[in-house]
Amino acid sequence: MYNLDEEKVFRDPIAGYVRVNNEIVWRCIESREFQRLKRIKQLGSTFMVYHTGEHSRFSHSLGVYEIIRRMVNEVKDLNNGLSDYDKTIVMLAGLLHDIGHAPFSHSFESILNKKHEDYTISIITEKSEVNDILNSYSSSLSADIASIIKGTYHNSILCQLVSSQLDADRMDYLLRDSYFTGTKYGEFDLERILRTLRVADGKVVIKSSGMHTIEDYIMARYHMYWQVYYHPVSRSYDVLLEKLFLRLKDLYIENSDKIVQQYPMFKDLLENETLTNDQMYHLDDSCCHYGFQLMCQNDDKILADLAYRVLNRRLFKYCSIDKKDQIYNMVVEHGFNPKYYFSQDIQIQNPYKPYSNEISSIWVVKDGGEIVELSNESRIVSSICQNNQYKDEKVFFPKEVIND
Amino acid sequence: MYNLDEEKVFRDPIAGYVRVNNEIVWRCIESREFQRLKRIKQLGSTFMVYHTGEHSRFSHSLGVYEIIRRMVNEVKDLNNGLSDYDKTIVMLAGLLHDIGHAPFSHSFESILNKKHEDYTISIITEKSEVNDILNSYSSSLSADIASIIKGTYHNSILCQLVSSQLDADRMDYLLRDSYFTGTKYGEFDLERILRTLRVADGKVVIKSSGMHTIEDYIMARYHMYWQVYYHPVSRSYDVLLEKLFLRLKDLYIENSDKIVQQYPMFKDLLENETLTNDQMYHLDDSCCHYGFQLMCQNDDKILADLAYRVLNRRLFKYCSIDKKDQIYNMVVEHGFNPKYYFSQDIQIQNPYKPYSNEISSIWVVKDGGEIVELSNESRIVSSICQNNQYKDEKVFFPKEVIND
Amino acid sequence: MYNLDEEKVFRDPIAGYVRVNNEIVWRCIESREFQRLKRIKQLGSTFMVYHTGEHSRFSHSLGVYEIIRRMVNEVKDLNNGLSDYDKTIVMLAGLLHDIGHAPFSHSFESILNKKHEDYTISIITEKSEVNDILNSYSSSLSADIASIIKGTYHNSILCQLVSSQLDADRMDYLLRDSYFTGTKYGEFDLERILRTLRVADGKVVIKSSGMHTIEDYIMARYHMYWQVYYHPVSRSYDVLLEKLFLRLKDLYIENSDKIVQQYPMFKDLLENETLTNDQMYHLDDSCCHYGFQLMCQNDDKILADLAYRVLNRRLFKYCSIDKKDQIYNMVVEHGFNPKYYFSQDIQIQNPYKPYSNEISSIWVVKDGGEIVELSNESRIVSSICQNNQYKDEKVFFPKEVIND
Amino acid sequence: MYNLDEEKVFRDPIAGYVRVNNEIVWRCIESREFQRLKRIKQLGSTFMVYHTGEHSRFSHSLGVYEIIRRMVNEVKDLNNGLSDYDKTIVMLAGLLHDIGHAPFSHSFESILNKKHEDYTISIITEKSEVNDILNSYSSSLSADIASIIKGTYHNSILCQLVSSQLDADRMDYLLRDSYFTGTKYGEFDLERILRTLRVADGKVVIKSSGMHTIEDYIMARYHMYWQVYYHPVSRSYDVLLEKLFLRLKDLYIENSDKIVQQYPMFKDLLENETLTNDQMYHLDDSCCHYGFQLMCQNDDKILADLAYRVLNRRLFKYCSIDKKDQIYNMVVEHGFNPKYYFSQDIQIQNPYKPYSNEISSIWVVKDGGEIVELSNESRIVSSICQNNQYKDEKVFFPKEVIND
Repeated sequence: MYNLDEEKVFRDPIAGYVRVNNEIVWRCIESREFQRLKRIKQLGSTFMVYHTGEHSRFSHSLGVYEIIRRMVNEVKDLNNGLSDYDKTIVMLAGLLHDIGHAPFSHSFESILNKKHEDYTISIITEKSEVNDILNSYSSSLSADIASIIKGTYHNSILCQLVSSQLDADRMDYLLRDSYFTGTKYGEFDLERILRTLRVADGKVVIKSSGMHTIEDYIMARYHMYWQVYYHPVSRSYDVLLEKLFLRLKDLYIENSDKIVQQYPMFKDLLENETLTNDQMYHLDDSCCHYGFQLMCQNDDKILADLAYRVLNRRLFKYCSIDKKDQIYNMVVEHGFNPKYYFSQDIQIQNPYKPYSNEISSIWVVKDGGEIVELSNESRIVSSICQNNQYKDEKVFFPKEVIND
Repeated sequence: MYNLDEEKVFRDPIAGYVRVNNEIVWRCIESREFQRLKRIKQLGSTFMVYHTGEHSRFSHSLGVYEIIRRMVNEVKDLNNGLSDYDKTIVMLAGLLHDIGHAPFSHSFESILNKKHEDYTISIITEKSEVNDILNSYSSSLSADIASIIKGTYHNSILCQLVSSQLDADRMDYLLRDSYFTGTKYGEFDLERILRTLRVADGKVVIKSSGMHTIEDYIMARYHMYWQVYYHPVSRSYDVLLEKLFLRLKDLYIENSDKIVQQYPMFKDLLENETLTNDQMYHLDDSCCHYGFQLMCQNDDKILADLAYRVLNRRLFKYCSIDKKDQIYNMVVEHGFNPKYYFSQDIQIQNPYKPYSNEISSIWVVKDGGEIVELSNESRIVSSICQNNQYKDEKVFFPKEVIND
Repeated sequence: MYNLDEEKVFRDPIAGYVRVNNEIVWRCIESREFQRLKRIKQLGSTFMVYHTGEHSRFSHSLGVYEIIRRMVNEVKDLNNGLSDYDKTIVMLAGLLHDIGHAPFSHSFESILNKKHEDYTISIITEKSEVNDILNSYSSSLSADIASIIKGTYHNSILCQLVSSQLDADRMDYLLRDSYFTGTKYGEFDLERILRTLRVADGKVVIKSSGMHTIEDYIMARYHMYWQVYYHPVSRSYDVLLEKLFLRLKDLYIENSDKIVQQYPMFKDLLENETLTNDQMYHLDDSCCHYGFQLMCQNDDKILADLAYRVLNRRLFKYCSIDKKDQIYNMVVEHGFNPKYYFSQDIQIQNPYKPYSNEISSIWVVKDGGEIVELSNESRIVSSICQNNQYKDEKVFFPKEVIND
Repeated sequence: MYNLDEEKVFRDPIAGYVRVNNEIVWRCIESREFQRLKRIKQLGSTFMVYHTGEHSRFSHSLGVYEIIRRMVNEVKDLNNGLSDYDKTIVMLAGLLHDIGHAPFSHSFESILNKKHEDYTISIITEKSEVNDILNSYSSSLSADIASIIKGTYHNSILCQLVSSQLDADRMDYLLRDSYFTGTKYGEFDLERILRTLRVADGKVVIKSSGMHTIEDYIMARYHMYWQVYYHPVSRSYDVLLEKLFLRLKDLYIENSDKIVQQYPMFKDLLENETLTNDQMYHLDDSCCHYGFQLMCQNDDKILADLAYRVLNRRLFKYCSIDKKDQIYNMVVEHGFNPKYYFSQDIQIQNPYKPYSNEISSIWVVKDGGEIVELSNESRIVSSICQNNQYKDEKVFFPKEVIND
């Protein structure tokens, strides 16, 4: 369906090559919304801890696409069982799943009042270059791709490939983030997982001989969360960003014209509840960093100080939640306004959620053909799930509070 | 102490370089007992599953030495806390810890009536080239090295480095076996572990900030056991070897002169309860393989058949223990003598044994200085330890029994 | 000299860890000028070809520092032969050597009227955070570091480590750019090079036993140049950037107030011959990308079109210089102004320049002690140098010119 | 053609997976002649220099097969242009091309009076398990596979894939030997080469856009030869082996019955000009090493000494050919018989031989369709070929001669 005359490829350290044979895929990659992903860091604040974690959502999105392309071609049950149309839309869903991401996602989602998944749906289904491209091929494409991303497409197998506890998204980001940060925690055996995938009972399942590989993948995810994604230094940077935008908003409330004139790149964000596709298009890492630079010279001491900290890695310190009251008092004593200079933050992550739902769970097909949910078959996974309190709670505050 | 004029190095894919500065270490590497380790495969039968797992105990022994060398030089508490003499003997203990290994260790230990650790002690402390070399430097060396290996040396820190649940032996073999078999299960972050090692309360401990790395290491070990070391195909090969030697022994009992004449390389093994250092020196993979070749032409059909299977990978099939009686009957019905053509085998492996003992356990030092055993601090490890039944039980039998 | 209480480390995929023990180094890393390097991509336009080549000059600068740190500690002749002061300044010179880099260096150097090396010297020796830090330790530091970078320091060995045909700069960027782009062309055996470095006759030299490794390094460099750095698609992007700034400058000449008001981030660039340290500080990838976004909406069709092309990868096509006149005519016929839509470009790169000068050349010490220049000893290198015409000449033009 | 019901795979660090879909291929892998390759080290004596270079010809042969399997499936021109029969025989030719290799090939070829290629042809076309398997499928198979290996098959494209200067054999061994020895010299970009292969004018050619990758491959080969394959320490081991067999032969001439009784594993080798398939089957690394062990106890001092040196790495020293006469005299003065204790050896290797012949050369197809030989198109390759004297000449002798 809409094959290119000649395969296009992208050299990629994770995938080897990302291979594009489908014209629709190629044109979506060329769209301005997809090209924008080059200007959004995949790991947001994490490059403050792992300084080489500077890769973009562009490369991750290509990587997700490529894993799905391989799944629908190399997993025999999928290759035989899916129509050309279904193969096309699931590849496009993988490619486009992150197209609505704002910069620094965690910090911005609170400000944006809408999840990045919803922005993704808007860009695919409403006015945009991507939407125009899809419509030029078939009127059903954009709605079908959106329904895969929302998990409502009638063939739930496609939803599983794009979004479940064993989806191409997680597979790519674990490998990719691991490679670019230089850690080894996220490595697992993708080739073997691809070899053990089957379709049975209307679901993607894994052969029981591949179960150890899945256990390894679950642990890889667990470790990446605690060692990379929820690393307290990253969270500290997120706290700083939240405080910065909180201060900006407060100043905007006081004098909106002045702030909008000073920081035109944040006009849409300050004036609207949610952003249009076009407004979202213009929000990227670049305009934020340029904005932070300008803020360093603001007359408002708090805004200027927070921007300087963000830009030059003068991060907040952190400690256990036990010392919350003590730290709070010290922040106040040192003359810092705790509204902008004190934060508490909790992170909870379960390595695997059994029976979360039919689509999201991981299913194992036993030698005799019986299909069971992963935690019933894996002693390691069931051990881990019994202990459901993997959380970390911390308070964040300026270094000066304890170093003086 | 006995520094070489110029550092000698071995290029090594795991260590980068193995660096030798100490003359005693260098001379032990040159000894015939250590050179023999080039003729003993590290993974015994596993290369029947992972065909590239062909590396020798020679390279593993150098790898263990190198990790210990780095520990005593790069871990500040060890570098400052240990004398030159202690550094030398612990490096030598790492280098020599496997020098008493027979070929195909699992299969042979039952035949040899003595563990490889005991043969190692004999080679270090009794007549051998290695023993001569050690004695030429100091009369206390061989006894002290042996006591480190036995875990009885007065400074138990040295024992921990060589043999505990976080020792240089495990660290090297996980990384090395992973590399050579081409699996990823055994990878973990050695550099970070080295950075988080400390000495406290007379023990080697890890800083709590390194705990996730240790969890990753524990899981690496778990996966390597089930995916590589206890892989049923490897066990199938071990079963074949056991049956082969069982048959050989039975024929020897019938007519010892004939068998010894036919297979002179197994003379010592058949005639003695345990082997001398010199007899052990002559037992290696080469003489076994040559012996198997000769056996293929023996008039005894069973011996010839078992040898042909060993040599040409006609392995036994396996299935769950549930079908034990059924399979047994089928073996008999097909005219196979079950003494040589039927086996049941159980493997049990715990990813981590908490409180096994003071030396073997892994200890974590918390920020406040308190030292706790790993399973008290790691939710993942404690989850896993609650479930203490990681076992796999199988029966093994000729393929012909089910394929006819 | 000025040792930190506890070593600080950066996890790095190339170096493993970047280790910082020196307080001056640490404080320079924290300076706003060094932190700015996080906002300058190492490879400029190359990420348009190799989409994962998104790493920053920050990580490269740390990498160069780390290689020099290892050289002065691990190469025995350097460790013994250099004073603590010399070790400190050469590490700082490595760390800071790129601190004056503008974004998209090739395109900008023509606009900036001053080489990035000169901006580097300015930042180190004139008013800046980095300069303040250096002066707070010793009044001679900044001048001495600058003279190493300029190649005029009295001990020319330090200059060789930072800038020669076998310097830490090249070593890091070959390995790093290779890793992040996912190519293998730039890999070579750094560990072995470090092992074969010696000091003789007042120069850094390599032992003749390491010569094959150096040949491999020379070829790695040759391949990286043609496969990555001078890839025609990268050059095409550079051409677009040059044309964009050319148009911007022309519009500025027509109506400077308007342009400065529309694009305040380019005010300094448009108004001045050269930039001050503070002006250079504010010029980074972020402000450029934000500027390009704004330009897409400009009333001037040419500026808006060029900006759209830059931002969304609508690159110029290229072909051999042979068709220069033919292409030029087609550009004109299609209604494009060739001043902004046609360019010719030549690239020349020699894998190695023998006898360029005493500092820059690579020297080999033979077994007998004689020191010769590399091309006298290596048949491969001398073969390559005889052929001194490694050049590539191309013309660039809009795709529409040939596709209509 | 003869597809297996389910694909069989071998995990492999170089190929990822070796995939077998063809029943004939699978049965050949199971043959005793192919299984024997597990007992022949790929690199012969090289593991004396690079201690981890212990991999077997079994894994290399699988690797060559896998590259050819990928070529005939993934290179569009080959996939479309070759019949199923041709695909099958070229994969089998790749798999079996080394099946006639003796242990320690360089040393043995002089003794065996026949090249390993000729033994390979014999095993394929005359009585053997492999020959039986091939004949059971089609009477033409064995002859056609043999003619591919000999380079005489009517479709010369198949010959190119198996044996030329850009064949699957070289591609696999460079990558594999590089991986297992832990050097980086042999790495090149296989994926990109596969992508740039075409068929034109009845030949396998590469697109000119892939030429830099081929240059990298040529250099990889050059470096592997000098750094690994022709490393003087490996050659020193080969010299020892030659001397050992020379002495054995001389003793056999004196008293053949005694020697044959003492060393039955070498009976065939001593008694015959050339070996039969069955005799060759029994000759492997194992029987040699066992033989060397026995020889250490021989009454003949020279044989026992040479065997001890071989087994325990007491290698000969080497120096430049210039000192030939001087060294010869010293060998004699020290009481060594120079027939067994002195050797001179020359190695010549050209990185690439232009115009060697139609099949062996590397051909480049230019954008316009013209096909030229590589050295006409690559400046690097032509530079290198002008200098045709890449040789190294050395003398070898016992260490004692200079150390006393």
